[in-house]
Amino acid sequence: MQNKIKIVYIFPSRLLEGAVNELAKLPGIGRKSALRLALHLLKCTPEEVEQFGAALVRMRREMKRCSSCGNISDSELCEICANPKRDQGLLCVVEDIRDVMAIEHTAQFTGLYHVLGGIISPMEGVGPEDLSTDQLIQRNRNGNIREVILALPATIEGDTTNFYLYKKLKDFPITVTVIARGVSVGDALEYTDEVTLGRSILNRTPYEQVLTRK
Amino acid sequence: MQNKIKIVYIFPSRLLEGAVNELAKLPGIGRKSALRLALHLLKCTPEEVEQFGAALVRMRREMKRCSSCGNISDSELCEICANPKRDQGLLCVVEDIRDVMAIEHTAQFTGLYHVLGGIISPMEGVGPEDLSTDQLIQRNRNGNIREVILALPATIEGDTTNFYLYKKLKDFPITVTVIARGVSVGDALEYTDEVTLGRSILNRTPYEQVLTRK
Repeated sequence: MQNKIKIVYIFPSRLLEGAVNELAKLPGIGRKSALRLALHLLKCTPEEVEQFGAALVRMRREMKRCSSCGNISDSELCEICANPKRDQGLLCVVEDIRDVMAIEHTAQFTGLYHVLGGIISPMEGVGPEDLSTDQLIQRNRNGNIREVILALPATIEGDTTNFYLYKKLKDFPITVTVIARGVSVGDALEYTDEVTLGRSILNRTPYEQVLTRK
Repeated sequence: MQNKIKIVYIFPSRLLEGAVNELAKLPGIGRKSALRLALHLLKCTPEEVEQFGAALVRMRREMKRCSSCGNISDSELCEICANPKRDQGLLCVVEDIRDVMAIEHTAQFTGLYHVLGGIISPMEGVGPEDLSTDQLIQRNRNGNIREVILALPATIEGDTTNFYLYKKLKDFPITVTVIARGVSVGDALEYTDEVTLGRSILNRTPYEQVLTRK
């Protein structure tokens, strides 16, 4: 009994087939979506499609990684590292540049970042040597850092990486902190999972601290 | 009360922002997905990204429309129209090239196609003049067509277009048919909607016809 229908397209054009094959390589885009995207591009003007392709090629070719923090950048130093107004003694360690963008968007952090480029995951074969851990140690060795904030995912892999980095950093004269785990702002307690709720009680905050916060 | 959080990204690079803006123009791709795709492309080699862009640009620039049926084609006449073994007297009218591919995949149709390029939809401002209806009339005027099959969507717009085309074609010495509406193969009757089930009774098929079918 065959219940699942396999989608096989007989393409009327080899050019279309080529474009669909390329689009289907993108993550989360199947062959059906790829065909829809290709047909959309066919409705655009040739100039629009050229602009589309050029923007992607140019990004891949010309984009650099910041030599200090590993963030994506148009120049040698990223805008954050090059900004003298940022707190040079405060370092926030993140997995990915998306996390930099998310934290920047909160407008609550004024220090510098360190992009690891991943987290330790034996399941996926990612070890400390695949990440920019050595550069992180080096930045601490250079001095003038007083606090490292570990802002990694709240998963087993994130916790493993936190512990690994803590062991490497604990002999430096710095404070190592992790971002708070707790109840999401706006959430009802009854819908919060018990581990998070438990952590939010263990890591409770003095109320005066909340009051004096801007 | 603001419940919906607007996603605003502060991009660390203008090149990345440009690529995300272009990717977000694709249908069904929001800014969050566009960023994910852009970061995926950054992990590819520059050659892979160039091949990706070139395949899309080349498709848009070099692809032609078949001068006879309006299907997408690499040459002046598409492979279907250029095939002398196909039944030149049987014409199947479809909305879109995706429908050509779907019908070709059934391997049940041996005639030629006519791609309308849309269906009549007053809501979206699409009238008969925006479709290749004149070319369809012209193909019938040229003679040697004995049947036109209307294979348009089973929607109000599809029905409207069917009726419009029927009025235009009824004075030609041809048979105008529509594809059967009925219970999907493999479906239980109790889960079929009543309109479809009603149509399947009205358009019932002589059982001998089913038996003699290969």
